[in-house]
Amino acid sequence: MTTASICTIGDEILIGQIVDTNSSKISRELNNIGVKVRYMVSIGDDHREIVTQLRKCLNETNIVIVTGGLGPTKDDITKEALKELTGATGYKESSEQMENIVRILNARGIPMIDTNRAQALVPDTCTVIPNKLGTAPCMSFHLGGYNGSSRPSGSGTSSRSGGSSRPSGSGTSSRSGGSSQLSGGGSVLYSLPGVPFEAIGLLPEIIADIKQYFNLEHITHHTIVTFGIPESTLAKRIESWEDSLPENIKLAYLPNPTIGVRLRLSQFGGNSDFSRQIAELQSIIGDAIYGEGDDNLQTVIGRMLREMGRRHAAGQNAIVGVPYTLSVAESCTGGHISELITSVPGCSDYYKGSVTSYANEVKINVLKVPSEVISSHGAVSEECVKAMAEGVLKALDTDFSVATSGIAGPGGGSPEKPVGMAWLAAAYRPRGTSNIIITTQKVGFASSRSVNIERFASYALNLLRLHILRQLR
Amino acid sequence: MTTASICTIGDEILIGQIVDTNSSKISRELNNIGVKVRYMVSIGDDHREIVTQLRKCLNETNIVIVTGGLGPTKDDITKEALKELTGATGYKESSEQMENIVRILNARGIPMIDTNRAQALVPDTCTVIPNKLGTAPCMSFHLGGYNGSSRPSGSGTSSRSGGSSRPSGSGTSSRSGGSSQLSGGGSVLYSLPGVPFEAIGLLPEIIADIKQYFNLEHITHHTIVTFGIPESTLAKRIESWEDSLPENIKLAYLPNPTIGVRLRLSQFGGNSDFSRQIAELQSIIGDAIYGEGDDNLQTVIGRMLREMGRRHAAGQNAIVGVPYTLSVAESCTGGHISELITSVPGCSDYYKGSVTSYANEVKINVLKVPSEVISSHGAVSEECVKAMAEGVLKALDTDFSVATSGIAGPGGGSPEKPVGMAWLAAAYRPRGTSNIIITTQKVGFASSRSVNIERFASYALNLLRLHILRQLR
Repeated sequence: MTTASICTIGDEILIGQIVDTNSSKISRELNNIGVKVRYMVSIGDDHREIVTQLRKCLNETNIVIVTGGLGPTKDDITKEALKELTGATGYKESSEQMENIVRILNARGIPMIDTNRAQALVPDTCTVIPNKLGTAPCMSFHLGGYNGSSRPSGSGTSSRSGGSSRPSGSGTSSRSGGSSQLSGGGSVLYSLPGVPFEAIGLLPEIIADIKQYFNLEHITHHTIVTFGIPESTLAKRIESWEDSLPENIKLAYLPNPTIGVRLRLSQFGGNSDFSRQIAELQSIIGDAIYGEGDDNLQTVIGRMLREMGRRHAAGQNAIVGVPYTLSVAESCTGGHISELITSVPGCSDYYKGSVTSYANEVKINVLKVPSEVISSHGAVSEECVKAMAEGVLKALDTDFSVATSGIAGPGGGSPEKPVGMAWLAAAYRPRGTSNIIITTQKVGFASSRSVNIERFASYALNLLRLHILRQLR
Repeated sequence: MTTASICTIGDEILIGQIVDTNSSKISRELNNIGVKVRYMVSIGDDHREIVTQLRKCLNETNIVIVTGGLGPTKDDITKEALKELTGATGYKESSEQMENIVRILNARGIPMIDTNRAQALVPDTCTVIPNKLGTAPCMSFHLGGYNGSSRPSGSGTSSRSGGSSRPSGSGTSSRSGGSSQLSGGGSVLYSLPGVPFEAIGLLPEIIADIKQYFNLEHITHHTIVTFGIPESTLAKRIESWEDSLPENIKLAYLPNPTIGVRLRLSQFGGNSDFSRQIAELQSIIGDAIYGEGDDNLQTVIGRMLREMGRRHAAGQNAIVGVPYTLSVAESCTGGHISELITSVPGCSDYYKGSVTSYANEVKINVLKVPSEVISSHGAVSEECVKAMAEGVLKALDTDFSVATSGIAGPGGGSPEKPVGMAWLAAAYRPRGTSNIIITTQKVGFASSRSVNIERFASYALNLLRLHILRQLR
């Protein structure tokens, strides 16, 4: 099996200032294509430590992925170590990365200084994968027959170091040999910047490069996304279904507080038709399944609002369907639902906006919640959250709306309304009517402020999803 | 210097299912007491891999902290490896941990089964630090003169393995010898459960134990929080100040997209007065400094709004100062600013709420932005963002407001208004006047949608901070 190691460089990790989230995302992608991650290691910005550790990684695994150690202030140490390790004779300037540096500095209105210019310099043994999202380049080193000496052997390396980002020649032929490794037991090392969005942004190119170089076992995955059934309950309900899966299909649970529990089916070899398994699962947990792959509640809601528009247009014999629109009224969630909805590119087609009514007077003045509702039932009540959903739907003139009112904590709780409790509402006004259909839900959690807010928001989105689903049936 | 390594055990880490947050928290605590973490490593649930890796850690560092690999279903692998590694002859039952297991299972109403009972068994070379928060015990191994052989030497170990959790005898005398290590170059290994709240809950006892065993250098930290100067520019501007720092004070840059660049001063030995260094830094970068320690923009803004209230009350000879109030109008940031502000417990004292005006009609109808402003200048313009800030301040009746309008991407850009560009505004209406003072800023970034949103939001909060600061002077 093709193996990998992930090495994170940076004193900031070792002093506990930041959490390394890159390694987890990288290992997930490697795992998806059938590469086994043997270990992950984090080391400091220290030349000797970097050389020693990377040499060990190269000797023990086929693929080494390095992140970090490339910021403008500490650039040199990692690059110098990579130069020594790969037997480079010097540095070359990457013109492609220089273009990115100029563009990024220009956009931010920052004048170029020497430290920025130096970021385009790379060891002459590497192939640059340009990083469009940041000033530090991504470097790949294809080390034919790495054996722990500082000078790699094999013609593959020198032929690929000319600056082209696509391998040619011996690299290609070695892939058709049927072995799961490069000919000569070669290793591949990728050095990525540590900034998470830059590292993750480069990952698709790294994965494509790995797939080109190694003959990996054929694995297909299918992920089913669910919401509303806790992991342990779900495991019990689908136990016999899981037991009946064919030998070559494995199931993994991937719980996420915002997305729900994702169920990943992985099939080793064979054809990749999961339709029978999915149909059986659907018959067991029904509407708890809301999507597949990278779907989340907010993308699925957007898709359903567009579908509502298409259906409406078809009913009116219109050609173009205008998506149904959405607004949000938040109290305890403080803007988080709106943030989730606007994380979807193109959401302006259906999303009009939100009112965060943190103060009661905003509920009354902007959302037109009757003050008697608050004085008799309190702001955290079914009556109030219904009035909020109705108020924002009217004020922003949308087809759907969703509202929250609860106690995120740590303060503000009472025996009847404890910290972690919230009322949620979703509202719908059918086009051409003044009738508003509202559904509500009371939820309770016992977590920290931030986790409570996260859960209130995702449960509210799920309530909205089910409300739209009923109109689509 | 006393060194440490942190080893995380668990297949779930290596397949990218969960992010290891324990190592970061542990390394922060070690760093705070002057222990240098040399590396962190994550490995799978595999006997050979565990033994090999931990032997390496014990040979290379004074302190080894292991987390994970102790759940009820996979208990055996880690414990068996620790037994082999520390030369234990067998297992013993920890009566203290058994009490915890019984108590925890009773509280959850779960009957005890063999796998639970087995959790109280530990290698006979260890001292148990009882884990009150979970069923897996915390084990400490004090290995006098560990030298890579599987059987530790030195009387310290055997005298401490009798079950008492406090060391005595030779362990104490070695600490007064002035060396930074145990006599005989001994190592200490702690094995903690992987569940984050259990591991972190045990940390104070681990830290106390380490302080008892090692003579650690006295170290004090002070963190200064800055915003608005990019890391590379900041490094250049404070270069000569950094060079003039006394030998025993070290500087670390800790950039964070939402918080800004934190500068951490660490002093080794001596007294811990950083006031002269901070005053000098202030004279160089002035208002870019906005806080210290764990401060962030939203906590500091809350503090300043409370201070505005106190000043106002003092001016009116009033006893209680009512905090000045804040509202937010968001377009491109979609709710993120409001979310950041409401992440601060107690923010309801000063935060009234927000309007996310994603659609232009919401800008016009709810925020009262004149439609001519949008038709002549566009929604992403200085004129529009000023009108939004003024509109939300009036609609929600607050003292201050902040507003954003920009292009988060990936679509919607144009040559004049590219993706990553935004206009920001902060507004203030002095109490008792109808005059509104507005400040604006244009920013440009070249990142992904989510990072652009994050940066727009933090720059907007910083603009608001500086606007409040001017009123406080």
